[in-house]
This record gives sequence, structure tokens and C-alpha cells, in this order.
Amino acid sequence: MAEERANDSRQRVVVEHVSPEIDCGRFAIKRVIGETVVVEAAVFADGHDQVVCQIWYWQDKNKLQYAPMTALGNDLWRGEFRIDNLGRYFYIVEGWIDRFQTWHLELAKRIAAGQDVGVELVIGAGLIDEAAGLAGREDAAYLREWAKRLQAAKDKPEGATIAFEEKSLGIMQRNPVHHLGASYAKELSVTADREKARFSTWYEVFPRSCAVEAGKHGTFRDCETWLPYIAGMGFDVVYLPPVHPIGRAFRKGKNNSIEPLRDDVGSPWAIGAIDGGHTGVHSELGSLEDFKHFVSAAAKNGLEVALDIAFQCSPDHPWVREHSEWFRKRPDGTIQYAENPPKKYQDIYPLDFESANYRKLWEGLKGVFDFWIAQGVRIFRVDNPHTKPFAFWEWAIAEIKAKHPDVILLAEAFTRPHVMQRLAKLGFSQSYTYFTWRNTKQELTEYFTELTQTEAREYFRPNLWPNTPDILPEYLQLGGRPAFMARFILAATLGASYGIYGPAFELCENAPMEPGSEEYLNSEKYELKRRDLDSPVSLKDLITRVNAIRKSSPALQKNLNLHFHDCENTSIICYSKASDDLSDVILVIVNLDSFQKQGGMVQLDLAAIGIDAARPFQVHDLLAEAEYTWQGARNFVELTPEIRPAHILRVVQQV
Amino acid sequence: MAEERANDSRQRVVVEHVSPEIDCGRFAIKRVIGETVVVEAAVFADGHDQVVCQIWYWQDKNKLQYAPMTALGNDLWRGEFRIDNLGRYFYIVEGWIDRFQTWHLELAKRIAAGQDVGVELVIGAGLIDEAAGLAGREDAAYLREWAKRLQAAKDKPEGATIAFEEKSLGIMQRNPVHHLGASYAKELSVTADREKARFSTWYEVFPRSCAVEAGKHGTFRDCETWLPYIAGMGFDVVYLPPVHPIGRAFRKGKNNSIEPLRDDVGSPWAIGAIDGGHTGVHSELGSLEDFKHFVSAAAKNGLEVALDIAFQCSPDHPWVREHSEWFRKRPDGTIQYAENPPKKYQDIYPLDFESANYRKLWEGLKGVFDFWIAQGVRIFRVDNPHTKPFAFWEWAIAEIKAKHPDVILLAEAFTRPHVMQRLAKLGFSQSYTYFTWRNTKQELTEYFTELTQTEAREYFRPNLWPNTPDILPEYLQLGGRPAFMARFILAATLGASYGIYGPAFELCENAPMEPGSEEYLNSEKYELKRRDLDSPVSLKDLITRVNAIRKSSPALQKNLNLHFHDCENTSIICYSKASDDLSDVILVIVNLDSFQKQGGMVQLDLAAIGIDAARPFQVHDLLAEAEYTWQGARNFVELTPEIRPAHILRVVQQV
Repeated sequence: MAEERANDSRQRVVVEHVSPEIDCGRFAIKRVIGETVVVEAAVFADGHDQVVCQIWYWQDKNKLQYAPMTALGNDLWRGEFRIDNLGRYFYIVEGWIDRFQTWHLELAKRIAAGQDVGVELVIGAGLIDEAAGLAGREDAAYLREWAKRLQAAKDKPEGATIAFEEKSLGIMQRNPVHHLGASYAKELSVTADREKARFSTWYEVFPRSCAVEAGKHGTFRDCETWLPYIAGMGFDVVYLPPVHPIGRAFRKGKNNSIEPLRDDVGSPWAIGAIDGGHTGVHSELGSLEDFKHFVSAAAKNGLEVALDIAFQCSPDHPWVREHSEWFRKRPDGTIQYAENPPKKYQDIYPLDFESANYRKLWEGLKGVFDFWIAQGVRIFRVDNPHTKPFAFWEWAIAEIKAKHPDVILLAEAFTRPHVMQRLAKLGFSQSYTYFTWRNTKQELTEYFTELTQTEAREYFRPNLWPNTPDILPEYLQLGGRPAFMARFILAATLGASYGIYGPAFELCENAPMEPGSEEYLNSEKYELKRRDLDSPVSLKDLITRVNAIRKSSPALQKNLNLHFHDCENTSIICYSKASDDLSDVILVIVNLDSFQKQGGMVQLDLAAIGIDAARPFQVHDLLAEAEYTWQGARNFVELTPEIRPAHILRVVQQV
Repeated sequence: MAEERANDSRQRVVVEHVSPEIDCGRFAIKRVIGETVVVEAAVFADGHDQVVCQIWYWQDKNKLQYAPMTALGNDLWRGEFRIDNLGRYFYIVEGWIDRFQTWHLELAKRIAAGQDVGVELVIGAGLIDEAAGLAGREDAAYLREWAKRLQAAKDKPEGATIAFEEKSLGIMQRNPVHHLGASYAKELSVTADREKARFSTWYEVFPRSCAVEAGKHGTFRDCETWLPYIAGMGFDVVYLPPVHPIGRAFRKGKNNSIEPLRDDVGSPWAIGAIDGGHTGVHSELGSLEDFKHFVSAAAKNGLEVALDIAFQCSPDHPWVREHSEWFRKRPDGTIQYAENPPKKYQDIYPLDFESANYRKLWEGLKGVFDFWIAQGVRIFRVDNPHTKPFAFWEWAIAEIKAKHPDVILLAEAFTRPHVMQRLAKLGFSQSYTYFTWRNTKQELTEYFTELTQTEAREYFRPNLWPNTPDILPEYLQLGGRPAFMARFILAATLGASYGIYGPAFELCENAPMEPGSEEYLNSEKYELKRRDLDSPVSLKDLITRVNAIRKSSPALQKNLNLHFHDCENTSIICYSKASDDLSDVILVIVNLDSFQKQGGMVQLDLAAIGIDAARPFQVHDLLAEAEYTWQGARNFVELTPEIRPAHILRVVQQV
């Protein structure tokens, strides 16, 4: 390939505008195993010679593979390759002048014009000989023989016939001479993840609220008894808030009070106490052995454990004593606690990434991941990554994934777009999104068009959360159970990955700390909770059904196949997801109004869902187990919030 | 600046998406002296600290200059710098955390909340001391004193007052500490040309057709007598086809005949004969001295001479003997002539850029430019650059412009978009365009929107030609004199640079070789022509007037200020150009129908031309010397092709 050749200024081919390419090749695109990378490029040369190009791709540079590219017209070319393994892939595009093809096309024109082609046949024989010199033994012998015959027939009428032998042309075609081949200057890369990086279903639970006995601190063992409940609803990731010892100093009481009671349990995010820090286990939850037992119990239920990594320390954290240089000192000798002036968070010491000893700090933090990976954890939800340096994350994630390419990291950054995008680009496998606050049809359409139709599609994998322990959105506060149903269906069908913070979610808990606040009243962050999982208000049946639909539908397991359809009623949103071969087409129609029945005509883009307007087609409502026969683009729908705020329709047209 | 610092992984600021940037910084943008470069970038950091950024720019890296950037919101920043000299400029963006500003903003919040800020004042004093360490003597002394006073007042009520002293803050502001500053990874560049690279008015003439006596071969001296005529019409570039000895072998006769008569003059593009090649002067035109005399005579008339550089050789060219290795040999020992099978051009030998000795060839070709530059030529029209390698042009143009940054090169490439764009990117100052074949309102609007609103605006400077010796477009063939008028006005007002091949153009010569051909009948490429410059059909008065309008209108001397306005009649196109300060606003309305009077309402975008809809405004027709008073966006126009196919209106609203 090209790099093996000297950089020869006689190279006449230009390869430019290779896509996908993120920030001039600075960052990798993302794929999961089984997906393809479709590569496009502009490839052209001066003059009128025939240009050919191909993709070179590799994981190991000693094992190059190539994929052909075909011309799209206007000097644009396209090809693709498939991702089969975890890790990193690299790709470039190489273009070259195909002298043989140029010669052959011109020969045909000369012959058609009745010109003498004797000298041309000698030139062609030379090109074939050149190819023979690079071909395998058998082909080389054949090509040499062909060149000889061509040369011998140069002044005879059969010369032309020999030049157009189909078999010979075929052998020539598989032995192309990359004449002065020129490659794209940059090696572009792909992060290849396992499928769960794209398609995953998360359930967040506080183990300490899983005790059987009222008022008791729940343990990992207690939480194990919940696993069948969680798995039964169809989740495949059980995500735990930090499991580490909780600090005592400045501990927050119930409802974030700065005057805690003696038995207040504290926030799991105030990490570190006398008995351990980020690699410790909170004794009230159990031992490290109990945690590992929990991980294997989860696995038996088809669940992976996702751990919360929150890089901040309570004043009691062992690092405060052992690595005081990792924290910023104030002139009065005290350690700088977290602040957002005038607010003070004296229970939290941020780490000082600008300290001279930052390399040790980086190593220490990566060690936290290493520790939990050694305990069998492969999924991490990273708390507030946007308050730690980008350079740290880029280094740490590369280090982690080099050894453990199956690790998945979810970035919990609810911040400005450039910052969220940067975190995704530098390596986070999944990202929290603005979905949590996108409620209207216009907001949802614009946001998901951005996520699926702009460059972000190549590296930003959304994970949609209708609620979190920190966020009870106003829409849920006001809309009650119908709002929870609608937001759940949106999350589970707009996103290949989504998660809920349960059981607060399925039990439709919607009391805020105070009007205008997104904090939960009596938040689980500061106290133990006890719930009735069998409450009649619970959405567990809906959740179970929707997750089953997701499992049975390849289309819903992807993000980039999202297509919006029109509906005249602004309270009704309609979108479809279809598998590439259109064998699986799901149409989702949601009433976004939690209070009123809404109806109207939806205007389907039939081409996008593979439907022939001339014939009727069936839509199976997978939620209601009903069937309708529709025809044409315009069809009427009506949705009642409290009963069924949405249709999830499988679209089928008999052949 | 950043490069002087070690690349420190503690850098927390990200600088990305810097624009303008062509192909990831691979190519320079273009500006002329007096223009500005507006730079935008996304600049942000982790966390909540205050980020600041600025542009660094330079011609000589030892003389860095900077320009401030201001926040646009959403982490985007903008700044600009002015181009004052010819040559190359470079620019980067540097961002850093402004610790002092961060501290100061937070201090204000703390004080407002009534917090004790004693320790904060000590921290602030430290930051001021740090700035003092980098400041000039006077400022340093002031800042040290300020820090001292702040420190001393840390526990006193006046501490806060001292921290907010306006004078002190001003001195601090002009001594920013670029804390862990991070720069954009690439140095972006600008090619700075003289104004004529953007605004130029070309007249192409064959000196051999300038003889006073019928049938005689014209000379440079004859052509000198035409200079007042050309300059009188307002042109500032007189462009000559190749002036070199013309080959005898396979010389083409009249109308491209392959059977020339003894006295046929041959094509100036069949370069090279016994008496010289690309550095020779065709003896029938005169001597090299005569050429130089012509160049100074032109200068006296306010005209620059543009020379045609066509890198191809007649079989008689000295290089064929002296550098036979620059040509491709066929197996029968003959030299490969130009072909486009089945067509053969035996009068032309192309140069072989793939030859092993290509470096010598490159040097030889650049030597041609060097030779003519030494004779006082600074403008070159390069023939078919798209049939020579991109790498050659990029090298040659860089070499030429490094020594002679005032050189202007026009690329005569009528080929596919990517190829034309590449030539512009790699260094050609101006480019021929598809204007020659864009006739309808939709075609013109789309094409000029592409040239002025896409990335091409940064590097592709159009030069619009309604005709050339090779192209007599069908529109002119069919539309006759009204078509010539309309196309002329379009070229001269859509493009800051345009050219005509005269006198064929102003005399409205429109007979094609045959129907469907764009070749001129009895083309001047193969024979001497004799014309009556005073013919009543001549457009010289119109040309003179329009060029005078161009000279008096800064707005018409630019390309990127083009704005299209609606007109309900598809035969009427309406557009404006305005100076940045709206002191010069030109509105052009053209009837594209050469046969019918057309009228209709134009719908002006008043904001784009700085007009208040509530008050009347005046439009002065600079072609008809008429004045109209209009009000509001909708106004009626009517244009008669044979009399006046266009309005060129100066728009003025009294204050």
C-alpha cells in the first residue's frame, strides 16, 4: 500500500474529503460489531486517465484488508467494510491511475474508428507484463503468455480480438497495478464496541433502599432479591449509584439539609470515609465479596452491573491524607472545597487536575476503573465528566479500552453542546442527552434530527433518561401517570439505549422538593426509601411489554434509522424506525398532551417505510394487540393519555 | 504564545472548529490587501472557570500580533485581523483560563451573599502578583502595590473596595496571564494578494490581428496603437494569447483544417519552432524588445499585460531536441502526440510529468514564468492547468509567489468541480468559471450562491468570461446583440473580475463553425482577422459606461456581498451588491430574454440594501441616467432587450 512507497511527487491522484472523518481525523468514529463503515471520498487526477480507488482498513497494520469503491459520479466514490472485532480499526483511501483500463478504453475507441493499433497493442502488452510482475505465480504466467500473444499479433487482425478476451481481462482486473498510488494523508479510526454500547436498557436502583424490613439499610444481598423484578421488566443493565464508604464530615441530611440527624445515611456521592475511598465498599451495603456476588447474581438474571464513577472526595476520603497534593490548598492551609459561589459544598473536595503532580493523580483515578474491572464490572456511568479535564478522559479511556475493549462508559454530562460532544468524541461510549427536557414535537424532532442526521451520528450515542435521581422534570411533575407513560415510550423507542431511575419512575413518583425545582421531595439521595413494587399505579406491565417489543425488533435497536412523519396535530408526534432491508418496520405515534385526548391525520412518508401506496397494508398495534388495515399516506389516529397515549405499530404489507 | 510553552497535559482549554479553514488547514485562504480575516472558533474548558481566547497572527513568526475574540454564546468566539501586506499570513487561536477574572466574578457573588472574603482577597493578591511578574516595569510596580494593599486589607471592610478599583482592574486586564494556554493544533494560512487579484477587468486580444494594413501580420507595435482603445473602454488587463514561435509540423490551417495553406499563420497554442520555445517571441510579432516596449506602453495606458502560459509543445519546439526525456516515447520510437481517442492532435506533444526526470521538467517550466516575470509580466493566464499534475502547480506557484507575491495567475480550467476547486485551493489567484454556460435565472442564482456562500468563497476567485476564442456560447449565437449586452452586464456586475475576448465580443460576432458547435467560424485561432472597431453594432459605449460604473462603485469590486432578490418573472434576475457600511448600494436587474420585452414586480429584501420600508428611496439608473422614486419592497420594472436589457441602479435613501 501507499505508505510503503516513497512519497513521489509524480503522484497525480488526489484523495480528499474522506468521510466519515471527525475533526480532521482527530477522533475516532464509533461502531458496534456487525455494523459497517461506509466510506466516501473525492478521488480524481489531472487529465483524462482512468482513476480507481479502494479502502484500505486494518486492526493490525501487518494484516491489511481492502474494500472496493465505486464511482458515484462527479469524482465521488463510495465503499464499505464491516466491523467484526472489538477494539480499534483504521482506514484510509488510496487512489491510482489505472493505466491498463485507460489504455483498454482508448483502444476500443481507436478500433471503432478504424485506426491502426499495432503500436497500441505493444504498449498494452507492456502494461500486462508489468501486472504479471506483481501477480501470483499462476496469474503471472497467464498474463505473460497473454502479453506475448498480443505482441505477436500486433500487426494482425486478430490482435484486437486477443485484447478483448474476457478471461484475460478478468485475470488482469484482479491484478491491478497501483500506478503511483496516492493515499489520503490521514489514517482515520473506528472504535469498535460490543452491541450493548448501542442497544442497552438501564435500570438505576439504590441498593440501600432494597431492604425487606422497614427502616433498615438495604444491602447487596437485599438488592439481589430485586434482580428478577428488574430483569423481568426486560432491563439488561442494573446501574448502582456509588457503592463506596460515605463521608461523615459535613454529611447532608434528608432533603439536602446541612443539619443532619445522627442516623442520616448521607449521599452516596460524598465518597470516602475512614474505611475506604473509591475502591472501598460501604460496609452497610456489604463486603467486596457481597458486591462480587451481586455482580454474578445479576449476570444469572441477564443483567450487567453498571457502576457509578464519581471523581470527588468527602473530607474523610483516604486520599485527603495520603495524597493531599491532589487537592488545592487555600492560603489559610485548608483544602478548597467545592463551590459555586455563593453556594458552598463543604462535604465535597474536588480533585486538583492542575497540580504539579497531576500524572500521579491520573494514574490513581485510572486505578479506580482497573480495580472495578478486576471485580467483573464492564459498564461505568461517569458522574460529571465535564468538570474534569478532557485530556484526562481521553488518556484514561484509551488506556482502559486498549486492555478491555468491551468496557462501556456512559458520560453523565448535562451541559453545553460543545462540551457534551467533546466528551463523546474523546471516547465515552454513550452520553446522557437533552431528551430529559425535550417535550414538544418541535423540540423532539429538532433534537433527534440533530443526533441522527448531523456528524454527531458518527460518535455520539444517546442514552435517554426520562428521570434521574437529580432530575424530576416539570413535565412529569405536572402530567402525572400519563406523562410517565408517554415519556417512557418516547425514551424506549427514540433511543436504542435508554434508562430509568426506578422504582421512582415506574411508580410515577412526581413530588418535587418545591415548585420550580427538579429535585425530588424526600430524595433518595439523602435517605432510605421503601416502596410497594406491586402498587396499582406501577408502569411495570407497560415497561415489560415495551422492552419485549424492543428485543423483538432489530429496527428499535438502532438510532440512525429514525424518520419523522408529519401529523397535522402538534400534540401528536409520529416517527418510524426500519431495518435496512425493511423487513422490520416500526411506527410510533405518541400523544404528547398528558391531559387531553388528541386525534388527527398522520401523513406517512410511505417510501421511508417501504409501503406501496397502491395497496393496503396492515399495522399491528403491539401495545394494544389490535390490527388495522390502512391504505395510502394519510391515516387517522386518536390517543387517550390516561388509557393509551401511544401506538407502537408494526407495519406489514403482504407481497 | 502557546508554542513557546511545553505541551502540558494540564491544559484544560479546547480550541476546535477554527474557521476559515480549508481541508483541515491543508490550503491557504485568499485575501487581498485591505480585507480582513474574520476568525471563529469553539473555545471552552471543563468546569466553570472563565475562558478567554485570542487570535495570534503573523507574517514573520518573530513578529507575532494578536487580535481579541469576543464570545458569541454557546462557546463560540469571533475576532478579526486586517491584511496589510502581500505574501503569506498565518493564524491560530489560543484559549486559556482566566484565573483572575474567574476569581473576581466569584468574589462579587461572595460579597453580595455577605460571606467573609478574607482568604479570597489573599488568593486574589497572589493572582495579581503572578500578573505583575509578566508585566512591563511600570505596570508590574503598580500591580505589586495593588496586591500588597489587597493583602493588607484582607480583614478590613475596605478590602472589597480595593478589589474593585476600576483603574487597577484596567491595568490587570492589559496584563493577562495565559494560564495553561492551549492553541489550535494547526497553523492556518492566508495568501495575501494585491487588489487586482479580486477586482480586474480583462480584454483578450490577438496582436497579430492588429495590423493597420489588410492581410498583414500584426505586430506588438501595431497592437500598441490599440491600447488607447482598450484602456478607453475601462479595461485594466490586456491579455495576449501565446506570443511564442509557432510550430510548422502538422500546423493547422483555417478553421482547424489539417491541410494548411503555405501562408496560414497557425495556432499560437502550437508553441515552439526552430527559433524558440516558451521563452521565445514569434518573429512576426516582433522582438523581445518590442514585447517589453508593449508592456511599458500598456502600463502608460493603465493596463497590465497578462501572458498566456500553455505548457505544450509543437513537434518543432527546441525542448523536443534538448529534453527529449520530457516527452513520452512510443514503442516504435516516435514521441507520443496529444490524443483524445479517436481524435489525434499531431501538432501537439504533451509533456510527460511521470518521467523519471520530472524534477528537471518542473524546474524548466517554472523557468518560463521566471523569464517572463523578468520581462515585467506579473499576470499569467494558464492554459489547461487541469491536464498537468496538481503537485506541480502547487510547487510552482508557491515558488513563484515566494519571490513575487504580486504575481496573479488565472486558471483556465473548464472541467469538473472538484478539479477546478483543487486548482484554486493549491494557489491559482483567479479561476475561469461555469458562468459562460449559466444562462437562466435559476442557473445563475444557484451557481453564484455556491461561489459566494459556500466554503469556495474563501479560495475561489471567479473571473467571468461571456466568450473566449474557444467558446462562443449558444446563448450568444442565438440571441445576437441583446444577448451580448445582457451577458456583458451580468459578467461585469456579478463578478468583481471579468473578461471578454475582443473585438469579437464588442462587435457581437456570433457565427459558429457549424450548428451545435461552440467554435467560432473562421476562428482567429487559425487566421488573421481585420475588424471595424467603429462599427455601429459595437458595444464599446456600453462597455465604457459599465466599466466606469465599476470603477466608481466599491460594492461592484467585491464578490461576496452578492445578494439575490425575488422577481415573479423568471426571465428577470435581480441582485444587489452593497459596501459593508451600505454607503454604496448597487441594484442590478437584467432581462435574460434576448427576444421579448419582460416586465414584473421585483420583491426587494430591503434589509439587505439598508432601506427603511417606511420611507421612499431613490434609484438612479446609471445606464439610462434616469431617476425613480420607489417605496417598499415591491416595485415594477420593464426591460426591452434590444434597447436596454438591464438596470444598474444606485440605491439611495435620504437620511
